[in-house]
Amino acid sequence: MHRVKSLPQYLLDRYQEWKEHTFPESQEWFRQLAEKGQRPRAMVIACCDSRVAITSIFGQRTGELFVHRNIANLVPPYTPDGQHHGTGAAVQYAVETLKVQHILVMGHSHCGGVRGCIDMCSGKNDALLEKDSLVGRWLDVLRPGFDRVKDIEDASIREVALEKEGIQISLENLLGYPFVKRAVDDGRLTLHGIWADISDMGLETFDGAVRRFSHN
Amino acid sequence: MHRVKSLPQYLLDRYQEWKEHTFPESQEWFRQLAEKGQRPRAMVIACCDSRVAITSIFGQRTGELFVHRNIANLVPPYTPDGQHHGTGAAVQYAVETLKVQHILVMGHSHCGGVRGCIDMCSGKNDALLEKDSLVGRWLDVLRPGFDRVKDIEDASIREVALEKEGIQISLENLLGYPFVKRAVDDGRLTLHGIWADISDMGLETFDGAVRRFSHN
Amino acid sequence: MHRVKSLPQYLLDRYQEWKEHTFPESQEWFRQLAEKGQRPRAMVIACCDSRVAITSIFGQRTGELFVHRNIANLVPPYTPDGQHHGTGAAVQYAVETLKVQHILVMGHSHCGGVRGCIDMCSGKNDALLEKDSLVGRWLDVLRPGFDRVKDIEDASIREVALEKEGIQISLENLLGYPFVKRAVDDGRLTLHGIWADISDMGLETFDGAVRRFSHN
Amino acid sequence: MHRVKSLPQYLLDRYQEWKEHTFPESQEWFRQLAEKGQRPRAMVIACCDSRVAITSIFGQRTGELFVHRNIANLVPPYTPDGQHHGTGAAVQYAVETLKVQHILVMGHSHCGGVRGCIDMCSGKNDALLEKDSLVGRWLDVLRPGFDRVKDIEDASIREVALEKEGIQISLENLLGYPFVKRAVDDGRLTLHGIWADISDMGLETFDGAVRRFSHN
Repeated sequence: MHRVKSLPQYLLDRYQEWKEHTFPESQEWFRQLAEKGQRPRAMVIACCDSRVAITSIFGQRTGELFVHRNIANLVPPYTPDGQHHGTGAAVQYAVETLKVQHILVMGHSHCGGVRGCIDMCSGKNDALLEKDSLVGRWLDVLRPGFDRVKDIEDASIREVALEKEGIQISLENLLGYPFVKRAVDDGRLTLHGIWADISDMGLETFDGAVRRFSHN
Repeated sequence: MHRVKSLPQYLLDRYQEWKEHTFPESQEWFRQLAEKGQRPRAMVIACCDSRVAITSIFGQRTGELFVHRNIANLVPPYTPDGQHHGTGAAVQYAVETLKVQHILVMGHSHCGGVRGCIDMCSGKNDALLEKDSLVGRWLDVLRPGFDRVKDIEDASIREVALEKEGIQISLENLLGYPFVKRAVDDGRLTLHGIWADISDMGLETFDGAVRRFSHN
Repeated sequence: MHRVKSLPQYLLDRYQEWKEHTFPESQEWFRQLAEKGQRPRAMVIACCDSRVAITSIFGQRTGELFVHRNIANLVPPYTPDGQHHGTGAAVQYAVETLKVQHILVMGHSHCGGVRGCIDMCSGKNDALLEKDSLVGRWLDVLRPGFDRVKDIEDASIREVALEKEGIQISLENLLGYPFVKRAVDDGRLTLHGIWADISDMGLETFDGAVRRFSHN
Repeated sequence: MHRVKSLPQYLLDRYQEWKEHTFPESQEWFRQLAEKGQRPRAMVIACCDSRVAITSIFGQRTGELFVHRNIANLVPPYTPDGQHHGTGAAVQYAVETLKVQHILVMGHSHCGGVRGCIDMCSGKNDALLEKDSLVGRWLDVLRPGFDRVKDIEDASIREVALEKEGIQISLENLLGYPFVKRAVDDGRLTLHGIWADISDMGLETFDGAVRRFSHN
């Protein structure tokens, strides 16, 4: 641990700039949020991708969105096996403790995780098949979707199709978590699927009744 | 799935506002990022808490930070058991595919997850002890830290102490991932621990040599 | 002129921070605006006051608002006497060259200029009466309004009343500029009066038909 | 005045969006600024041009910059003739009442006002020569600069040269205001000239000792 030291200078510089010049306008807001606790209305499950600008898109003010970000915005199936499950823990905390009213699963175009899944399932990246590939095993969550898109010939259309399958798989898996199912059945929680084209930031939302995405 | 429909109207309104009035200034930047792919310099592992304003703090422009967010910003121990491990997958993708130069573990004050761990370990929340409590089993990652702070009498000092122990545990666990260890040993990657007081946004950084946090 | 040197360091630091970290997202937008020329849809006439955050309020993107700012957001009467008239020049350029569709006169609470006019007209600040007081002579534009509010006993109500009188005087003066009158008559231009309470940023708009301000 | 009504709907929509979603974070800051009064450290004299993003460039928080904006960011010569002089009034208020420490005259590339002055002085726009052209009479302030650049053959180089001459003329005129001269002599006030290329937002600052602009 002797090698862990301070912050990269460029990030420290920016923090100090922000702290001195931007933060003062909001300091009372932050102080009150710390004192009263958070009351986010919605949870967003999004990708770690540096190009997915969630807080900008929704004009979010600090304290409004509870955000879980993982590779390819996946929700694995419910597995109460006593092991560590970060995504499930985040969802449970959002639903049971914070009592959020909405969960949004937000996918996006040009997703490296989705592309990795296609490569893995079509034999172009054997390293991802290894048992100890953490990325590969995580992307297994997306495998059922691959079967449904594998016959699409155009590579970029196939990729978008799997990005959207992933959102549906995650929504279905979410409904498999008993506390999510109960909250949805009781009308306390709504689930939403959205897909963003990160090249023009167009947004499509998922309509579960017809199982289709459409533009907004 | 028939109940999954569109977006909550208030979020849709804000998206459309942003898309029409703010996005145009950056559209070419987004288009190029989509085309050329992301090249983030750093990964941040932070909490899902709606009050943790990472992208603001670091004056981040779209495309700079690869962000994983989970409850209490934890990194579980390396477990190559073939199961789904979202945090490990995100770290592996950041280090091996994106080749980020820095990983920041960012903790914060008033953390509901850390408070939950204290309640669980001190017998005040038995529900978290159940095998099927996803939150409880996730917070098990933080248990070794509880033993080191349990004798602190003042509740809020104990809480901050455990928030900081959590950062150290995560940094140590990170070094247990073979691909992280190799990158750090080769000088390709540096690890950093920071703790933010969300009531005044003061930042403390961790100095591994003396195992202590100090103000910036 | 030998004393004129560079920039105050704190402003240079912030410029460089902005240039390096924020500007890149918008650089293509700026480049195109420079190349194609500005096409602002509206002109705003506002106060120089550092607390009047026009561009924030209207979610303005660069290139949308043509902004003239002077003490107390005043438009003097039309005076084609061959002398320098900065406000009239700005209005003429906006209407004849840029062909803006709207002119907003935006007043605000706690206006030091308006307070100065009250002090001057009620004998509490004789310096402002001197012929060579540039501030005093500028505030003469507001004098006709003082007569209409001078009998209001409550000082802060009188102040707000004069702030709103000032907006109406400026709107009336605007209609005295022949190129403004013509554009309004032809339906090419609309005039608007707004008053902002800078303590809570509430906005009131002026309805010319009933000569009254009302909340939005 | 019966035609003056409310706000253009698109601006009202944006105001309401800002008021509801962005303003709450800063409301306490605004409230205190209203209560305590403004204390801006610097005054900026800039152009009305919609592409000159002053508050962005200097990472300004509300309350920091006192801003006067007119066509071509000009300061006319000191004229204590008892008439309305908006620019002089703004400067006097900044120096004597607010006691700002710095005045920045900020010019920019692609300035329509400067181009208009060139057209007027070189016989290409006779309308600007009319006595009642408010734009033309305002641009007379810049005329002495035209004589110094008129022999430059390349049109765009001549334009930039006049933009920079204008900044110097304004700085010299500023020193002709007795209250400015005194404050500078006493070391209470510094003057600064900057020129921004709005196509790439590069900034040049004026060094009075060598009478030259150089990059930052």
